[in-house]
Amino acid sequence: MTAQLDTYPQAVRDAVARTREVVSALHAELPRWGLVVWTAGNVSQRVVVDPAAGPGEHDLLVIKPSGVTYDELTPEAMVVCDLDGELVDGERSPSSDTAAHAYVYRNMPEVGGVVHTHSTYATAWAARGEEVPCVLTMMADEFGGPIPIGPFALIGDDSIGRGIVETLRGSRSPAVLMRNHGPFTIGKDAKAAVKAAVMCEEVARTIHVARQLGEPLPIAQADVDSLYDRYQNVYGR
Amino acid sequence: MTAQLDTYPQAVRDAVARTREVVSALHAELPRWGLVVWTAGNVSQRVVVDPAAGPGEHDLLVIKPSGVTYDELTPEAMVVCDLDGELVDGERSPSSDTAAHAYVYRNMPEVGGVVHTHSTYATAWAARGEEVPCVLTMMADEFGGPIPIGPFALIGDDSIGRGIVETLRGSRSPAVLMRNHGPFTIGKDAKAAVKAAVMCEEVARTIHVARQLGEPLPIAQADVDSLYDRYQNVYGR
Amino acid sequence: MTAQLDTYPQAVRDAVARTREVVSALHAELPRWGLVVWTAGNVSQRVVVDPAAGPGEHDLLVIKPSGVTYDELTPEAMVVCDLDGELVDGERSPSSDTAAHAYVYRNMPEVGGVVHTHSTYATAWAARGEEVPCVLTMMADEFGGPIPIGPFALIGDDSIGRGIVETLRGSRSPAVLMRNHGPFTIGKDAKAAVKAAVMCEEVARTIHVARQLGEPLPIAQADVDSLYDRYQNVYGR
Amino acid sequence: MTAQLDTYPQAVRDAVARTREVVSALHAELPRWGLVVWTAGNVSQRVVVDPAAGPGEHDLLVIKPSGVTYDELTPEAMVVCDLDGELVDGERSPSSDTAAHAYVYRNMPEVGGVVHTHSTYATAWAARGEEVPCVLTMMADEFGGPIPIGPFALIGDDSIGRGIVETLRGSRSPAVLMRNHGPFTIGKDAKAAVKAAVMCEEVARTIHVARQLGEPLPIAQADVDSLYDRYQNVYGR
Repeated sequence: MTAQLDTYPQAVRDAVARTREVVSALHAELPRWGLVVWTAGNVSQRVVVDPAAGPGEHDLLVIKPSGVTYDELTPEAMVVCDLDGELVDGERSPSSDTAAHAYVYRNMPEVGGVVHTHSTYATAWAARGEEVPCVLTMMADEFGGPIPIGPFALIGDDSIGRGIVETLRGSRSPAVLMRNHGPFTIGKDAKAAVKAAVMCEEVARTIHVARQLGEPLPIAQADVDSLYDRYQNVYGR
Repeated sequence: MTAQLDTYPQAVRDAVARTREVVSALHAELPRWGLVVWTAGNVSQRVVVDPAAGPGEHDLLVIKPSGVTYDELTPEAMVVCDLDGELVDGERSPSSDTAAHAYVYRNMPEVGGVVHTHSTYATAWAARGEEVPCVLTMMADEFGGPIPIGPFALIGDDSIGRGIVETLRGSRSPAVLMRNHGPFTIGKDAKAAVKAAVMCEEVARTIHVARQLGEPLPIAQADVDSLYDRYQNVYGR
Repeated sequence: MTAQLDTYPQAVRDAVARTREVVSALHAELPRWGLVVWTAGNVSQRVVVDPAAGPGEHDLLVIKPSGVTYDELTPEAMVVCDLDGELVDGERSPSSDTAAHAYVYRNMPEVGGVVHTHSTYATAWAARGEEVPCVLTMMADEFGGPIPIGPFALIGDDSIGRGIVETLRGSRSPAVLMRNHGPFTIGKDAKAAVKAAVMCEEVARTIHVARQLGEPLPIAQADVDSLYDRYQNVYGR
Repeated sequence: MTAQLDTYPQAVRDAVARTREVVSALHAELPRWGLVVWTAGNVSQRVVVDPAAGPGEHDLLVIKPSGVTYDELTPEAMVVCDLDGELVDGERSPSSDTAAHAYVYRNMPEVGGVVHTHSTYATAWAARGEEVPCVLTMMADEFGGPIPIGPFALIGDDSIGRGIVETLRGSRSPAVLMRNHGPFTIGKDAKAAVKAAVMCEEVARTIHVARQLGEPLPIAQADVDSLYDRYQNVYGR
């Protein structure tokens, strides 16, 4: 634990406290929807202070500590890091995936939340290095096309983060399947990224099951575009 | 929220209150039986006033609000619409599938409940555009034959509702698999439609599993007819 | 409801009360292990009075009422029938499968419990009319060989019961997969029959999964015999 | 029950009491992660007294009693055996797999916990006698290569234990799939062995699903080595 957080303004410390609550509560959604086992998986959210607070408001993230079970997750157990992934506050080490989360926040300013799981069906597509084709209307709504495959990357430097960012920049999809690894999802906040993780596994599973007995029927690109546009704009997401 | 419900007779408002309770409670069956994730899926029921109340008694429905999680569903959160899908009472927007439910109620007066899910196995058959064959006695009991495929239809007008009604009018089945989309089920009330949604996924899953390792044995049409007749009449459904 | 139970000796009525408790509690195991949806499935147990009570002690069974959900099952809700399947005590109709249970009790005096489900994997093998091969040591322990297929039979007379009895008499297995229908299991009491239903689905699922990617390795008949003998005798079942 | 435990020093009896708590609590993880049904599966842990206690500190193990359901497992219900598998303390018989656990403790002094399950996907690979290939980064982390297959072995002597030990001695993997039987896992304590059992099923399932629709992409051996080394050393397991 460091006392570094004490050097931040009160407004930042308040925002950190709110973000710890949100991130802690959202972790419960991962086992609830069957996306993780044991201590796998992690959710993070960028710390957003009131816009009036000025510069510096976006330089922290809150994430799950490493190796802690889902029963032990409380707001206090969450870890605060800066956007280089360095520990700012917390009693435990940050998740070993923190560098990848931090890279995304540094390079995609519109992203406020990141989720990583090894959910079964999404990871199975990732193991084959095969994108999930867009053959369901709910997938057109949420993903606007296929869920793309990111590169194979080892943990330990910025390779995973760079693979996520480079793949998602060319895609409508909020999810990327890192090859031989598993899904990472993004959103305007952690809740949106968790929703994307849940929907990613749902469509990966359903389309896997469909393909076990034949080929799914395609949806015309114009229909995919129309569904995506309506869901993102008219429906108000 | 509108105050329009206040202009209805007390008997209608009482029936609305009872229907909110029923519809709210039945939503819990969807995650319980694994038919939905996140906020997906919806149950509606036609508001039925005492027959003595005369005309106008069937011009309302109660449905799930849009984008609300299954933990937040209470009778008060349910939304009341007329049979054109216009909001009559409720603090939130009705489900984006309300137009499809309303079309069914306008065009199938015998229907008192409608359910929509994206349950995995039923949706997988829908993705291939392939009806579920009737090869189980429990399926002959409940569906009286195959579960049919409805057309591909975009959200936003009456296309989905019309596809449901046109497909189910020529079928004993209370379930239709809308192509690339998912199942819609009907019943005399919402509970019957929920049961049909549960059974639809059950037979879609079991017959999928059977077909993974070979071809299921057919059931003779006379036996399907006999089972369906007994279950619907003798057994008293 | 009939008052017929009042004409039985007190010792029988006490045994009925104990059996209602057992059968009610065991029903909770069916949804717990994922063997049933909605109101499907049923457990029964023969009423066994103290041996000193003399003749007539084995002429009743306790079974689930028809169409009742798993949340509503209490000892009081259970139904008492004679071994012709006629109602002796209870506020509701007995399960529509009661005739099959009763036939088993009339014709297999060593059987004290019967369970019927439509559990997914067992029913999938039943849909193809294909016995489950004995390729797991736990299956050799419990079933002593393959799980056999029973004939196609319509509900409404003794066809299902006869199919169960004729198939199980020639088998070590306490489970039979009725063609296009699902599993029935037997045991010395209802708990043993529930265990057989749980294990039947477990081995049907595991061997299905094994066969999806190739052929399981066989177990030599002498090893199957040795495992079965040890588990049934040495292990003390 | 024997009074033999009373002849041990107080420090050993205290360590036994602590181990009973640990082993009892860890059994709840098996049904939680879907690894077992009914009374199947068992966890054991070597009794470790404070190093100051000197020789004899490693001659006991605590294991699940035979045929007890997961609802009935309490610290008091756990059974204490010596490393020949003979009962030292407990009201019930030890698990019929105790001989295999005891053989592992006698022959692998670095092992402090052993787990056995029949988890579905791991057992399916075991039924085909096919090792699980290492095609996921999480599998490289935890297993450092494939999960190997052990020999077919009958219960009743040291065959199973010997098969486990001989297979695991030549492998980085803490899990072995005993042919036609199921997985055994080891760890420095029971918690580590339970984690290995959970991860074994997770990778067996994910790679099974991946292979259903094609071949997973391989991971280069140097990358497997690098991931394993980092996870076991840098990450601090």
